[in-house]
Amino acid sequence: MLNQIRIVLVNTSHPGNIGAAARAMKNMGLTQLYLVEPVEFPHKNATIRASGADDILAGAVQCDTLAQAIAECELVFGTSARSRSLPWPLCNPRECAQQITRSPASRIALVFGRERTGLTNEELAMCHYHVHIPTQEHFSSLNLGAAVQVLSYEMRMASLASNAADNSSEPADDEPLASAGEVNGLIEHLTTTMTDVDFLDPNHPKLLVQRLQRLFNRVLLEQKEVNILRGFLSAITRKLQGGA
Amino acid sequence: MLNQIRIVLVNTSHPGNIGAAARAMKNMGLTQLYLVEPVEFPHKNATIRASGADDILAGAVQCDTLAQAIAECELVFGTSARSRSLPWPLCNPRECAQQITRSPASRIALVFGRERTGLTNEELAMCHYHVHIPTQEHFSSLNLGAAVQVLSYEMRMASLASNAADNSSEPADDEPLASAGEVNGLIEHLTTTMTDVDFLDPNHPKLLVQRLQRLFNRVLLEQKEVNILRGFLSAITRKLQGGA
Repeated sequence: MLNQIRIVLVNTSHPGNIGAAARAMKNMGLTQLYLVEPVEFPHKNATIRASGADDILAGAVQCDTLAQAIAECELVFGTSARSRSLPWPLCNPRECAQQITRSPASRIALVFGRERTGLTNEELAMCHYHVHIPTQEHFSSLNLGAAVQVLSYEMRMASLASNAADNSSEPADDEPLASAGEVNGLIEHLTTTMTDVDFLDPNHPKLLVQRLQRLFNRVLLEQKEVNILRGFLSAITRKLQGGA
Repeated sequence: MLNQIRIVLVNTSHPGNIGAAARAMKNMGLTQLYLVEPVEFPHKNATIRASGADDILAGAVQCDTLAQAIAECELVFGTSARSRSLPWPLCNPRECAQQITRSPASRIALVFGRERTGLTNEELAMCHYHVHIPTQEHFSSLNLGAAVQVLSYEMRMASLASNAADNSSEPADDEPLASAGEVNGLIEHLTTTMTDVDFLDPNHPKLLVQRLQRLFNRVLLEQKEVNILRGFLSAITRKLQGGA
C-alpha cells in the first residue's frame, strides 16, 4: 500500500518544510514526493531538515500544476484546514487511511497546500476527498511537515494493520478505474456540452462545475463509464450539428 | 482528558524543536509543557518555530530531573525508538491513547528523550509504559517535534472519540439524498435522451442501461445533483427542438 501513495506539496514557500516532509515520509516508509511549483528547490535547508532522507529529495518530481502531479492518480485526497462553502466528502486522517486500504486504486495522492493559505478552492475541487486533521479551533494551522507526518503516520498504521490482517486477498474488482486526468477530461467535455445547450453560463460556471467535479470524483468512475458518458456527449453534439 | 496530559521533553538540544513541540501541542489542544534540562531555553528559535504558541512556551515548567517533572503523575509513558534489552510494557501511540482513555489517572506524562540518543535506560525505567512510534527499520529516528505531533494527534483523536461517545448525536450531512424513485426517474430521463440522440438503441438497451443504473446507484446521489442532471437533459431536448 505505501508504495502506491504519493505526497504532493503545492507551492511550498520554505524549503525546510520540504525537507521535513521528506524525513517524515521516509520514517513512515513512503517514497514518492511530488513538488508543484516549489518556491525554492533544491535548497540546503531542505537537505538539512531531511536529515538523511536525501533519496526522497533526489527522486522528487517537479510539476508546473497540480493537475499534472495527480494526472494518473485514481484517488486523490486534499488536506483542508476548514470546511469550505461547498460541502465535499470530508474525512479525518484515519478515515483517509481506511479509504485507501479499501480502495482498489493503485495510484493515490495526498495533496498538501501552501503554508499560509493551503489549497485553493479550484485545487480542492480536483480532489475526491478532503482530509481535515482535527485541530484546536483557534489555533488550527499545522506546520506543513507536521501535517505530512500525521498523514504518513496514519498510512503506515493502516499498512501495518492490513499486513497483519494476513493478506486476506480480496478479489479485486476487475474494472479498471479512471485516472484523475480521464475524469477531468470528462468534466471538461461535459461543461462544453452544457454550455452548447445553454444549460451552463460560461461566465458564471463556478458552483455548477464544482458540483459536477464533486459528484464525479466521489463515485470513483471506471474507465468504461467515462467512455460511455463521453460517447453520449459526442452523440449530443453530432445530433445538434444535424448528423444522422 | 487533554488537560490531564503533560508533555515532558528531556535535555533537548535544539530550542527550535521545543518550539515545534509547543506548536504541535497547541494545535492538538494540549497545554502543559515540562522541560527537563533544556540546553538552551528560552531562545528565539523556540519562539519562531512555536509560530504563535507563545502561551505554551511561557507556561513551560523547567525541572532539573525527569523525576521532578513526573513526580505527581500516576501514569507515565516514555517514547522509545527501539526495543531495549529490558523487556517493558510496550505500546504504539494509538494504544497509548487508549490506555489513557481507560485509565482513572488524573495526571499523565508523555516523556520524550534527546534528539540523538533518546531516553536513557534509567529514565525509561521510570516510565510505566514505553511508546514506540512504528517507523521504517533503517530510518527510524523521528524529528522530536514530529514525534510530539504524532502522540499529541493520537491524544486528540482519542479525546474527540470519547467526547463523541458522550454526546452521540451525529450531525447529519445537510444535503438530502435522492430517493430510489428519484434516481430511477433520472435514469429513465437519461435513457430517453440517449435514445433521442441515437446513442442508445432502444431495441438493445440492456447492458448500457444496467451500467448507468449501477453507476448512479453506487454514488448515492443527492437530490440537488439529480435536479442538475435532469435540468441538463431537459436543456438538450429544448435545444434539439430548436428552442432558444
